[in-house]
Amino acid sequence: MKKHQFDIPQGMIYLDGNSLGPLPSAATQRVAQTMQDEWGELLIKGWNQAGWMQQPAKIGDRIGRIIGASPGSTMTGDTLCIKVYQALAAGLNMCPDRKVVLSDSGNFPTDLYMAQGLLKTMGQGHELRIVDPENVSDAITDEIAVLLLTHVDYRTGRMHDMDALTQKAQAAGAIVIWDLAHSTGAVPLDMTASNAEFAVGCTYKYLNGGPGAPAFIYVRPDIAPGVEPALSGWLGHLQPFEFDLEYHPGAGIDRMRVGTPSILQLAALEASLDIWEDVDMDEIRARSVELCDLFIDEVEARCPQLTLASPRDAAQRGSQVSFRFKDGYAAMQALIAQNVIGDFRAPDIMRFSFTPLYIDQQDVLEAAKILQNIMQTDAWDTPQFKARAAVT
Amino acid sequence: MKKHQFDIPQGMIYLDGNSLGPLPSAATQRVAQTMQDEWGELLIKGWNQAGWMQQPAKIGDRIGRIIGASPGSTMTGDTLCIKVYQALAAGLNMCPDRKVVLSDSGNFPTDLYMAQGLLKTMGQGHELRIVDPENVSDAITDEIAVLLLTHVDYRTGRMHDMDALTQKAQAAGAIVIWDLAHSTGAVPLDMTASNAEFAVGCTYKYLNGGPGAPAFIYVRPDIAPGVEPALSGWLGHLQPFEFDLEYHPGAGIDRMRVGTPSILQLAALEASLDIWEDVDMDEIRARSVELCDLFIDEVEARCPQLTLASPRDAAQRGSQVSFRFKDGYAAMQALIAQNVIGDFRAPDIMRFSFTPLYIDQQDVLEAAKILQNIMQTDAWDTPQFKARAAVT
Repeated sequence: MKKHQFDIPQGMIYLDGNSLGPLPSAATQRVAQTMQDEWGELLIKGWNQAGWMQQPAKIGDRIGRIIGASPGSTMTGDTLCIKVYQALAAGLNMCPDRKVVLSDSGNFPTDLYMAQGLLKTMGQGHELRIVDPENVSDAITDEIAVLLLTHVDYRTGRMHDMDALTQKAQAAGAIVIWDLAHSTGAVPLDMTASNAEFAVGCTYKYLNGGPGAPAFIYVRPDIAPGVEPALSGWLGHLQPFEFDLEYHPGAGIDRMRVGTPSILQLAALEASLDIWEDVDMDEIRARSVELCDLFIDEVEARCPQLTLASPRDAAQRGSQVSFRFKDGYAAMQALIAQNVIGDFRAPDIMRFSFTPLYIDQQDVLEAAKILQNIMQTDAWDTPQFKARAAVT
Repeated sequence: MKKHQFDIPQGMIYLDGNSLGPLPSAATQRVAQTMQDEWGELLIKGWNQAGWMQQPAKIGDRIGRIIGASPGSTMTGDTLCIKVYQALAAGLNMCPDRKVVLSDSGNFPTDLYMAQGLLKTMGQGHELRIVDPENVSDAITDEIAVLLLTHVDYRTGRMHDMDALTQKAQAAGAIVIWDLAHSTGAVPLDMTASNAEFAVGCTYKYLNGGPGAPAFIYVRPDIAPGVEPALSGWLGHLQPFEFDLEYHPGAGIDRMRVGTPSILQLAALEASLDIWEDVDMDEIRARSVELCDLFIDEVEARCPQLTLASPRDAAQRGSQVSFRFKDGYAAMQALIAQNVIGDFRAPDIMRFSFTPLYIDQQDVLEAAKILQNIMQTDAWDTPQFKARAAVT
């Protein structure tokens, strides 16, 4: 429990760390230092003297530790959308004779959107095949060029069996990309052992890097030197400061860099990763399962109106619990009005994430009690709570 | 002159604002507020209640004013590399029957790299044709699908005739993309009058947005609704929070959004744009020409060892002056050691930018005197200054 290392408003029970993690107490000062002592004092010299140029790789390695990747295999930068595009373009390039990208309907839509945009841009008749999550394994055939999946479902928390699906896909000759957006910092991962070719993820959820924190990409070290970068930006060039007219990819994971790194966001992320430095992911997982199980038990006992949308078996679940309720949007607004922060995902999902760094059993019990009161009194049934904002 | 609105180290003459602008005095506090009052207090609610979701468009419009674009035609986000890719992919999509992208050897290499990556990904036999800057006009033929140029050359400051080249290319049936990296905030621009289809640029140079500040893209309003986004990310979706499995592009310029905006970088950029709010670009241009002309006169009179690399005619020049010198790297290091900050670009270019917001005639005279002293005494000729760092 490291709640004292975060600035969380007094009285708030924050169960939305799978959307945007809270502010690490040290982050504001860290960013201010980067601005005043580095940008302000060093100006252009900051790229060398403050080590800005190396930050994406250095911070990539710190994330690598959390996802079970070896040093030099994880790079930060851009947004998750862009990293999905990079990984998928590289994966398809490795399988030129196959034309099917397999994904599932539980994938976060932007992964599918980015795939649609890439396949259209390639104009080579590729198909994006979307099956239900439970049918992915059966849909793996020797037609599949790339298997593109999000490990933990953003709505239900349902977790794919990474190792089994990776093995099956690779045995069928496919390349495998895992989106770890809802896994990184939530469940133990061992990308090396998984043998998957690529993984991507974001850092503003469980890692608490802040709004707009950069994404990351992992490339299996043995394939990295042969990977063809579709987004061949100058900082991924072998010698960016030679200003060649011709692109030559950098060594290994360096070629997954694109443009100028967002140094202020990286400073905030660095402060948040300091908190993770001595965290044991197995310990986090044990606490997370306790919290999730407790919430399920309490809500099912207190709120018969809600139906569990997440797997009951913790082994098949990430670090979130979701319930279905017809008026879930309004109920979530009522809950937020009482300072219990979860979120809503269409059409009827109330989503709660459990983050042992700053949430404990008392928070879970308190949240369940407040939810019970709202359901018992129909406190959600007001025009104010039912009016859905344009942006949510 | 707004030097008092920047934190520039005492005694430093900063002539590298075309690489990274200095820290606006208000920026650190602005970012700290965004972190503490918005991220810290509002957490996930910041997307609505602090207006984070609208920041990329709102700040885009403020940049739009500086580049002569109408409201609703400029969007911030990502890096310049990504914006080049978006614009070029969209442009090629508008000219399916033509297979040549025309650019020049004075373009910043990353624009060429991104084009190389895109053309390879498309795999449809496109050619990237690179001619010398002075031959661009003659190379415009009815083979050209897209003309992709940087307006002001990053090494020499040579400025293309935007209107003439745009007209000629469009008359030949081509789409035109201008990279405004070295023009935005440096020279008056009127993107509407230019009639170019696309423009892209960055905000960490003359706009002083800070290291990693987001890039921007302009799309001519009449074509925006038909533009096909290659990087079809969820925040460019018509209804991102409906979580459709199918991508439907947002209205107009909104479709150029990709992933989660970098809110901390945008906060710093916002503080820097406050300084620009009442700046008249014609006034900036008049002062810039005075400063550049003065520097050329002084250096030519004082330093016969250096050869002017920039156009002598101010009308053909951006807001920088470059000189060639065989040992330019070492000479620039010697100059930096005396707190006059310019930079070096291979093979022999010493580059100085003149930014009237915080540089005046006295700075120019002082810089020229220090440079004269270094050249007269061969102060650059030491192993320390000649040892070129791996990253510069």
